[in-house]
Order: sequence, then C-alpha cells, then structure tokens
Amino acid sequence: MKVINVRTDKRNQMLDITSQIKEVLIQSGVKNGICTLYVPHTTAAVTINEGADPDVKLDITTFMAELIPNRQSFKHAEGNSDSHIKTSLFGPSETIIIQDSKLVLGTWQVIYFCEFDGPRSRKLYIKIMGD
Amino acid sequence: MKVINVRTDKRNQMLDITSQIKEVLIQSGVKNGICTLYVPHTTAAVTINEGADPDVKLDITTFMAELIPNRQSFKHAEGNSDSHIKTSLFGPSETIIIQDSKLVLGTWQVIYFCEFDGPRSRKLYIKIMGD
Amino acid sequence: MKVINVRTDKRNQMLDITSQIKEVLIQSGVKNGICTLYVPHTTAAVTINEGADPDVKLDITTFMAELIPNRQSFKHAEGNSDSHIKTSLFGPSETIIIQDSKLVLGTWQVIYFCEFDGPRSRKLYIKIMGD
Repeated sequence: MKVINVRTDKRNQMLDITSQIKEVLIQSGVKNGICTLYVPHTTAAVTINEGADPDVKLDITTFMAELIPNRQSFKHAEGNSDSHIKTSLFGPSETIIIQDSKLVLGTWQVIYFCEFDGPRSRKLYIKIMGD
Repeated sequence: MKVINVRTDKRNQMLDITSQIKEVLIQSGVKNGICTLYVPHTTAAVTINEGADPDVKLDITTFMAELIPNRQSFKHAEGNSDSHIKTSLFGPSETIIIQDSKLVLGTWQVIYFCEFDGPRSRKLYIKIMGD
Repeated sequence: MKVINVRTDKRNQMLDITSQIKEVLIQSGVKNGICTLYVPHTTAAVTINEGADPDVKLDITTFMAELIPNRQSFKHAEGNSDSHIKTSLFGPSETIIIQDSKLVLGTWQVIYFCEFDGPRSRKLYIKIMGD
C-alpha cells in the first residue's frame, strides 16, 4: 500500500491528484490489474470527473454546497454534518483498471481528491493488484 | 480488459447491460474473484438497481433530473454541469463478486449503464481478477 | 465469498458492521490485499463514515429522507422509489485495503450497512483477494 499526502486550502475543494497516482503505478511495476484508491477520512472523498475545464469542479462544489447546506437543525456537535453527507454520496473508494502499465482513464477524466471540510492535511491510500 | 459498446438515445437513460457483462465473464473462464466495471466518460456512470419494473429506472432518472437541474448559473460553457454532477454521485466504477463462474447479483439486481448527456456512443470497461 | 446477515428495525437505518467484517478478515488469513463489500439488495447499500458520534448517522438518514422524499408522483407501484434512488447514490459496493492482516480504516471510519426500506432481513457479501 502506498500513501499520498494532500494539503487542501478551502472548505470545499476538488484537487487533481492524477499525476501522483500515475507515479505510484510506475513505481509498482504492475502491468495489468486494478488500482484501488481509498480515502481514510469521514469528511473527504475521491471522485473521477472532467479535468480540462476548471469550471466543472467549480460547478460541482458550488452546487453540492447548495444542495447539502450546513443546517442549524443538524444534531452532530462538530457542525460538519453536511461534510459527512457529501462524503457518503461521493464515496471513499474508486477502482481503476490498469492495462499495459497504464491507468485506463477516459480522455477527459482526472482523479479528484474531494475535500468537504478543509483546509486540512489529508491522506489517500493506493493499493495496486495484478502482475 | 474487455470493452462493451453502448448506444444511448436519450439525454438521461439507464440501460440494462447485465447480459453483456455475463457474456464477458463466461469468456474469461474465471470461477472465483471480482469483476470491476469502469465507465471512461465524465457524463455517464454505472449503477446496480432493480430491473423487474421499468418504472424504477424511470423514477430514478426523472427524480435526478429535478434534483440536479441544468442551471443557467453554471459556469462550465458546455452547458452540461448537471451531467457531471450526477456522474460523480453515481460514480464511474462498481465491483461485483464472482463465485462458481457467476456474477453474484441479488434477485432483483441488474447492472445499468447510466447516460446523463446523451444520445451518445459510449464504452464500459470490464476487468476480471481471480482464478 | 462470505455472507453477513443483518436485521434492520427501521425504514431508514445505518448499522455499524465493522466488527463482523474484521472477523471475516481474520478467518481468511489474508495479510495483504483488498476486501470487497457487496450488498445484493436494491433498497439497501453500504457506506463508510464516522462512528464515534451517533448523531452523524442520524443527521445523514434524516437529511437524505428530506432530500429524497417518497413522492406521490413516483410511478413504481411498490411505493419505495425513494429507497431505490438512495441505493444508487450510496452504492452497492465498497473496496477497502488490507495491510498486515488488518482493514486499513481511518481513525473515525466505521462500515455502515444502509437500510432504506426496512425493517427487513438483509445480507452483505464479502470477498477477500490477496495473500
């Protein structure tokens, strides 16, 4: 298992970590298999979406903040239940296929670390299976 | 890795692709392991839900179109930020267990390719690991 | 593949099943690899979130019930389209990394079986890959 460190600087933020995942894959020497990404936090997640236009991640984070606001009526005393809800909707894990020593991403896909309660220092775990 | 081609004919659509995944599994000869499904697009996803009553997928796509409308205020110039948001919520990958040469699906479960910005020609990747 | 049985007693409920998954891992003897969790139902899911404060799961289930109400306008005759929608958003599968014979969960993470149409008797499947 390998660990990537991520530093976020906003409450809601999507950070492109594709190049760091590709670097881990190269070092593993695995040619064919699967790559599991796992976020060990309860107010952060991982997703895959368009990386060409930065307005896509802006629209996603802005819309999600409106759809799931931080309500006064939430019981959880830390005041970040909205962050926990978004985390379960985006999910802590993704699995990507490896072929010919490369991550098989679509043309427009990049891998985003999703911060929902930053700024914070975060981690993402990577496990590569295959041969 | 195997590739399935999907042709969608609506903007929002859920297409049952279970039989095509089962065919790929049979050809692989794998008896026990896991099957990773991966959608290489940023406005389409994969999910697993009820297949018996077509009204289930109708209710899902109709509700999601209302919950996440295509707002004028979105910044992304292509005008499909709603499609990108739904893609991250449904997610690009699912993992299904293989036992005794079969996908272990529940009684009512089918695998749906989820189109959020069709009609388009799409692909879904399949990686089978096991023995 | 191993099976865990779950008994829910509310319509919407998140049940901490972490200890049962850990028990399956110990019995497997696998030291390094991945653990796939799979829910074979169409109105239940699996997620990973905070386990320390029970108000977190309360806020999640309460908010989701408001965000996705059981509308009169739904076509599906069984009257549980809201449950099907939540199932696709939370998702039927998660993958967790195994290292040194342990599930690599974050400090605050627990694994929740998510009931969206209970009370019912449910199952969750576990597949462990590795060595």
